[in-house]
Amino acid sequence: MRNQPKRADASRVRDSILERFHATRTLSRDLARGLNEADMTVQSMPDASPVKWHLAHTTWFFETFLLRDHVPGYRLFDERWPFLFNSYYEAEGARLARPERGLLTRPTVAELLAYRAHVDEALIDALPGLMDRHGDLAELGIQHEQQHQELLLTDLKHLFSRNPLGPAYAPPGDPGNSEDIPLRWIAGAEGLAAIGSDGLGFAFDNELPRHPSWLAPHALANRPVTNGEWIEFMADEGYASAALWLSDGWDWVRRETVHSPLYWRGHGRDWEHFTLAGWQPVDERAPVTHVSFYEADAFATWAGARLPTEQEWESAAQGQDPLGGIQLDRAGAVAPRAEAGAETGAETGVERINSLFGNVWEWTGSAYRPWPGYRTAAGAVGEYNGKFMSGQFVLKGGSCATPRGHARASYRNFFHPHQRWQFTGVRLARSL
Amino acid sequence: MRNQPKRADASRVRDSILERFHATRTLSRDLARGLNEADMTVQSMPDASPVKWHLAHTTWFFETFLLRDHVPGYRLFDERWPFLFNSYYEAEGARLARPERGLLTRPTVAELLAYRAHVDEALIDALPGLMDRHGDLAELGIQHEQQHQELLLTDLKHLFSRNPLGPAYAPPGDPGNSEDIPLRWIAGAEGLAAIGSDGLGFAFDNELPRHPSWLAPHALANRPVTNGEWIEFMADEGYASAALWLSDGWDWVRRETVHSPLYWRGHGRDWEHFTLAGWQPVDERAPVTHVSFYEADAFATWAGARLPTEQEWESAAQGQDPLGGIQLDRAGAVAPRAEAGAETGAETGVERINSLFGNVWEWTGSAYRPWPGYRTAAGAVGEYNGKFMSGQFVLKGGSCATPRGHARASYRNFFHPHQRWQFTGVRLARSL
Amino acid sequence: MRNQPKRADASRVRDSILERFHATRTLSRDLARGLNEADMTVQSMPDASPVKWHLAHTTWFFETFLLRDHVPGYRLFDERWPFLFNSYYEAEGARLARPERGLLTRPTVAELLAYRAHVDEALIDALPGLMDRHGDLAELGIQHEQQHQELLLTDLKHLFSRNPLGPAYAPPGDPGNSEDIPLRWIAGAEGLAAIGSDGLGFAFDNELPRHPSWLAPHALANRPVTNGEWIEFMADEGYASAALWLSDGWDWVRRETVHSPLYWRGHGRDWEHFTLAGWQPVDERAPVTHVSFYEADAFATWAGARLPTEQEWESAAQGQDPLGGIQLDRAGAVAPRAEAGAETGAETGVERINSLFGNVWEWTGSAYRPWPGYRTAAGAVGEYNGKFMSGQFVLKGGSCATPRGHARASYRNFFHPHQRWQFTGVRLARSL
Amino acid sequence: MRNQPKRADASRVRDSILERFHATRTLSRDLARGLNEADMTVQSMPDASPVKWHLAHTTWFFETFLLRDHVPGYRLFDERWPFLFNSYYEAEGARLARPERGLLTRPTVAELLAYRAHVDEALIDALPGLMDRHGDLAELGIQHEQQHQELLLTDLKHLFSRNPLGPAYAPPGDPGNSEDIPLRWIAGAEGLAAIGSDGLGFAFDNELPRHPSWLAPHALANRPVTNGEWIEFMADEGYASAALWLSDGWDWVRRETVHSPLYWRGHGRDWEHFTLAGWQPVDERAPVTHVSFYEADAFATWAGARLPTEQEWESAAQGQDPLGGIQLDRAGAVAPRAEAGAETGAETGVERINSLFGNVWEWTGSAYRPWPGYRTAAGAVGEYNGKFMSGQFVLKGGSCATPRGHARASYRNFFHPHQRWQFTGVRLARSL
Repeated sequence: MRNQPKRADASRVRDSILERFHATRTLSRDLARGLNEADMTVQSMPDASPVKWHLAHTTWFFETFLLRDHVPGYRLFDERWPFLFNSYYEAEGARLARPERGLLTRPTVAELLAYRAHVDEALIDALPGLMDRHGDLAELGIQHEQQHQELLLTDLKHLFSRNPLGPAYAPPGDPGNSEDIPLRWIAGAEGLAAIGSDGLGFAFDNELPRHPSWLAPHALANRPVTNGEWIEFMADEGYASAALWLSDGWDWVRRETVHSPLYWRGHGRDWEHFTLAGWQPVDERAPVTHVSFYEADAFATWAGARLPTEQEWESAAQGQDPLGGIQLDRAGAVAPRAEAGAETGAETGVERINSLFGNVWEWTGSAYRPWPGYRTAAGAVGEYNGKFMSGQFVLKGGSCATPRGHARASYRNFFHPHQRWQFTGVRLARSL
Repeated sequence: MRNQPKRADASRVRDSILERFHATRTLSRDLARGLNEADMTVQSMPDASPVKWHLAHTTWFFETFLLRDHVPGYRLFDERWPFLFNSYYEAEGARLARPERGLLTRPTVAELLAYRAHVDEALIDALPGLMDRHGDLAELGIQHEQQHQELLLTDLKHLFSRNPLGPAYAPPGDPGNSEDIPLRWIAGAEGLAAIGSDGLGFAFDNELPRHPSWLAPHALANRPVTNGEWIEFMADEGYASAALWLSDGWDWVRRETVHSPLYWRGHGRDWEHFTLAGWQPVDERAPVTHVSFYEADAFATWAGARLPTEQEWESAAQGQDPLGGIQLDRAGAVAPRAEAGAETGAETGVERINSLFGNVWEWTGSAYRPWPGYRTAAGAVGEYNGKFMSGQFVLKGGSCATPRGHARASYRNFFHPHQRWQFTGVRLARSL
Repeated sequence: MRNQPKRADASRVRDSILERFHATRTLSRDLARGLNEADMTVQSMPDASPVKWHLAHTTWFFETFLLRDHVPGYRLFDERWPFLFNSYYEAEGARLARPERGLLTRPTVAELLAYRAHVDEALIDALPGLMDRHGDLAELGIQHEQQHQELLLTDLKHLFSRNPLGPAYAPPGDPGNSEDIPLRWIAGAEGLAAIGSDGLGFAFDNELPRHPSWLAPHALANRPVTNGEWIEFMADEGYASAALWLSDGWDWVRRETVHSPLYWRGHGRDWEHFTLAGWQPVDERAPVTHVSFYEADAFATWAGARLPTEQEWESAAQGQDPLGGIQLDRAGAVAPRAEAGAETGAETGVERINSLFGNVWEWTGSAYRPWPGYRTAAGAVGEYNGKFMSGQFVLKGGSCATPRGHARASYRNFFHPHQRWQFTGVRLARSL
Repeated sequence: MRNQPKRADASRVRDSILERFHATRTLSRDLARGLNEADMTVQSMPDASPVKWHLAHTTWFFETFLLRDHVPGYRLFDERWPFLFNSYYEAEGARLARPERGLLTRPTVAELLAYRAHVDEALIDALPGLMDRHGDLAELGIQHEQQHQELLLTDLKHLFSRNPLGPAYAPPGDPGNSEDIPLRWIAGAEGLAAIGSDGLGFAFDNELPRHPSWLAPHALANRPVTNGEWIEFMADEGYASAALWLSDGWDWVRRETVHSPLYWRGHGRDWEHFTLAGWQPVDERAPVTHVSFYEADAFATWAGARLPTEQEWESAAQGQDPLGGIQLDRAGAVAPRAEAGAETGAETGVERINSLFGNVWEWTGSAYRPWPGYRTAAGAVGEYNGKFMSGQFVLKGGSCATPRGHARASYRNFFHPHQRWQFTGVRLARSL
């Protein structure tokens, strides 16, 4: 989890963390504005968590791993609450079963906001003294909360999508100048590449160690697959052609009767999709999103291509600025903007792979497994990433709902191959 | 569903209905006081519905079967809402799947209260003119809402029981003078009995027609089985003795690892149970409740007895005053009082079966099937009772959560044999 | 289980039992002729048992309840086998789970036939001495094996039906002179009727005690519903009309996508069904069979009628000769004959209800519950009937696969409302 | 699938294939000797197939892809059988659902042997003429049947293990001189390695193309983990320590209540396991087998090690003779010998990794995904391997049940991480 800056000015780091701590904690609360008590409490499926739970769980994380563990004399806000807000840390003991998070009509939102305020206050007092020895945990807490900010939005979107009334979280953004970018293939580097975190900033433990990897000759598409291309795939019976699918994918398609990306309804070339701004027409030029790994893989097969490996993707991204992605300053304004696809072509350059960050998480063809020499952290935080290294695939980049500053080339996001309620999309690759 | 009074003064009936309409609608709303938006929205299991949904569904019932069907020019409050609030009426078309009622964070409670106000207003205008031809539907709407008042409380209790914090809906009532009443056997009538509604008041269609039935010699216990007796059953390995159980019941006990009534925790003679006032000690003199038919039957076998048939029970109850049951005037005050068992011996008389009404719904040994000559009503309301006549058992009497005035001897409540989140209890019977 | 003849000549009874013991044991073995080792071993669903298992279980029943319990010095044929061949007797201890009966490729059929021979020999020796005190158990063993003879055929039929090659157990019978009998309504007796075994022959415990029951005015159809009538029901969208169905039935129809009786394929008026003689055209004049209670009930509703109560049916049957049913002398010859429907009109009389026995088991509208005053037998055989008295419905009469001499008016067969792999059919009734 | 020998003498290849075709077809039939019709028909779980089905499916493979596709005028033995014996080839159309393979009591074994003879005869006629253009398909058919020989044994073992009588397929082998080999770590090659088939013999499509891969510094254990070591893991609460397990593995352990390898029973140091020779004592010096990937991974974590990557394993194996594995000449003799563990130390050399082949399939830490540049074959045989490249892990080497001559360093076996009815074991690795 940790990767301490080697020669940085310690006080600047501390100030930066305090500032970002404040900004992150404030953003979480801002994201929940405009929601009522029920919107924040209901859980629409076991994979998703209530908004309220995200607000409390991120607070529990700070309270447990910083205040409880490292601030002498700190007393828990409520000793019954760790049972409620521990997510999956076995080392932290028994906890509420995941599918029951939505039963917590109490504590109320007001009580949870008081919890947040209490922990924030204690941390603001304690952080300066903790930075020397536990600055990595503070940084981890911030990164952790940023991850939950994205989940908060995707989980809320799922909840609203299940409501026949289709409520909106925010007004639709400006569809802007989404361009029609022709598909081009950009050759990637061949031979030995250095993969994994470069150690110049924060990295989760799963991004380490940096290590050599051999890349075969290949090319990546200059942009993600668009909704328009996906509609062609559907029109060509993509969802009904067994030959395109992995066996598990084909079972999934039939068992779940899948025939379009998640949140789509319509037919022919006439589709709309559910967004954080409610039901909206599908923009054919925007990147397709809410597709599973199985769908991504089948599409790639249909297109005569394949998914990139994680290493190919990361190698290509190493020269890019992850801040080019979309900023998530205020919830209402941002997420729908991304969903309307306005940013697709924002940085198109000549012969350059654009948009690796900030549109959609891009499925890779790489199973989520440890880098050579990977070691988990000691203690409960060692459960953060390592124990999930089976059955999932890596996604790279970041989406319209990823907080600004959270993305980087070595970042390893991961989900199960059937999951698609995140902002997941597809970039094609080819072997040369 | 209907059973129009034969020679009653029409205007008195009309006034009575208007008055009861008002009282019933008010009570539903009162029951929800003190709950927050989330408490009223979350659904804790498919069998249960959210408080908010009960408030809306009962309103939909009036809107649909009175205003829409019989008030020319009436316009639906919101034409999208019948899809949300139709419970199970196939004739009324497609509807939200039952397990998804808890996803409706919108419409908000405030919007639903506006819906209630709108429908109330329209009905208060329309009812006088409707009484002649549709008074039976108005009465049905009231009775229907009374049923949902009980469900509202039992569903809420289930929700709160699943919260590790064990929130309370209301303060505990006065445990009062619950007596230790010795068990006595009271011989019932033998030979031909008249079973079913006597036609002197409202009756659901399933209480009709009144018909002869032959009763074999039998006796009923003078009071329901108590918590103390149930603790003896548990101490005697009742839940571990296959010989006591119906085959389906034994499967259920093992599959669900059942070892006490629902909502109990503890061991030996030291038990507490979850009530609408939170966790409370079990009163050994109070009637046991929250037991399934399977448990009731196994207990009776263990006790060398059996469950009464519906006809035996109804015959015994025909001489009793159902108003002896507990009044549900205001939610907070009432339900916990009953749960603490204070009323057990309220009406003990010499050689008299007491408490047939108002403590716990009493499982009978009779499967819920139609009376000879039963006919369903025409139209959608014909689905009210008849289509549920398989797989369920009849319960008689009423509970602490049954609205005053709702109980009667011929009333046929029914649940599946494994269900026990209602206030269900046991009265023993014997063949002589 | 027992109902000893009161004044019968004891030696005649003994001779009769020995003779019937021999005949019954021989018939079971004969029913398995022509089947290969695999046909006799495979289990096609948890509800069904392998042929081989039926042969062994019926033998275990005699070995356990007669030889082991009442013949001093008897040693079990193989002490590991009771675990394999105990069906559901909790008092007899642990046993193979029901869905695993089909995993027993060993013991082989030859070993099981040796088991049968061993037990038969021991019983033929022991029976004369056992008759005085345990003649009822011997009779029970015979009746029990007769029940399994019917199950053996229906379970085998199910297995063969799941084989895409559609193998035949026996050649098709002579379709004979199945008549087109017009539907007539025959009024039943009203008022008090004596229901339950008359004590003049063997009866299972669940047929006792004989007791009075009050019959409301009603009529029964003179014959079972025919395949032709069922085809009309299908053509009239019977399986797609929610209003006809019990709620549980409608759930079942949609969950299982049911649109015809079990074993049917085709459309319009062009249907064939799988029989013990393989796929055969449906004879529209023959009684419909392999329908569930839910289907039977929906059909009756569609026809403007209802199912008879058990008491109505039994009262009508009390004057009839159950031997009028079809004889099951040799498997190959008999069952297909019945399935081809030849016997429908065999005994048609003027104004008489015919065919109550021997065509199809007739669903009644009565849930399977105990008669007033019912008592289970002591010991393990007390589990024979009583513990199944929830969740099932009573069927009366007997089918083409019921052994001759096994049927009687008071006989109570019972199955769950969705089950239909037995030869189950429908007779209509009406309230007058 | 194909990798045609480049400069081999064509007639020698042809003769070799004809000879191996004959040997392989004969061995399959020999493996089934001693089994009765039912042993060969029953299916004990959806993952497993009946012996009979393996015999037929391998025949269908030859009939379809050689005779039907490439022998003009060939007529199918039975045109209904491709529906029965197609395994998973979507391009070959509809087929029997996998869990229903055990319902096929017909065709009989005798009919299937006639099918085998018919196809063998046709192929022996046709093969010489087919070798030039379709020799790769003939080779594929042989390799395919060899794979099913191993499955036939593991599936049969599973069936027999579910029988409470614990039948034996063959007599126990000679436990021999299984040695107690101390664990040593052998450093592997570092840097660039050539991975994938070297093109000198047959290879499945998934072994291609050969490609460079960078190996980090590492060491492999000189032998597989033994039963004795596994018993230590169990004694140290390995199955109860969440911290050792992948999250999915921990869910699996609790859901399935796993506490030992499959087929084990006992406690402490006193264990026996079910083998093809029935229940036998566990030999602590023999390699552990029948463990899942999850167990293998947890064990490695407990041991302070990890699983090898596929590339590490393959690199180490490239210098080894796969024929050192155990020969499967006759079923009865061989499999139990291996299961008794006699061969563990057969080839121990100084500082050499021994036994990479022929004991147990060794789980690697590599997810089963395509090699860079992988291409599926055209047509139905393209479904052979490629469509399974999600959700599974690679196993390398071979087991006691792998036919002699079938193993090679580049071979990629694959199963889901919870599966363990194959002869699966563990070799430890470490990063240096």
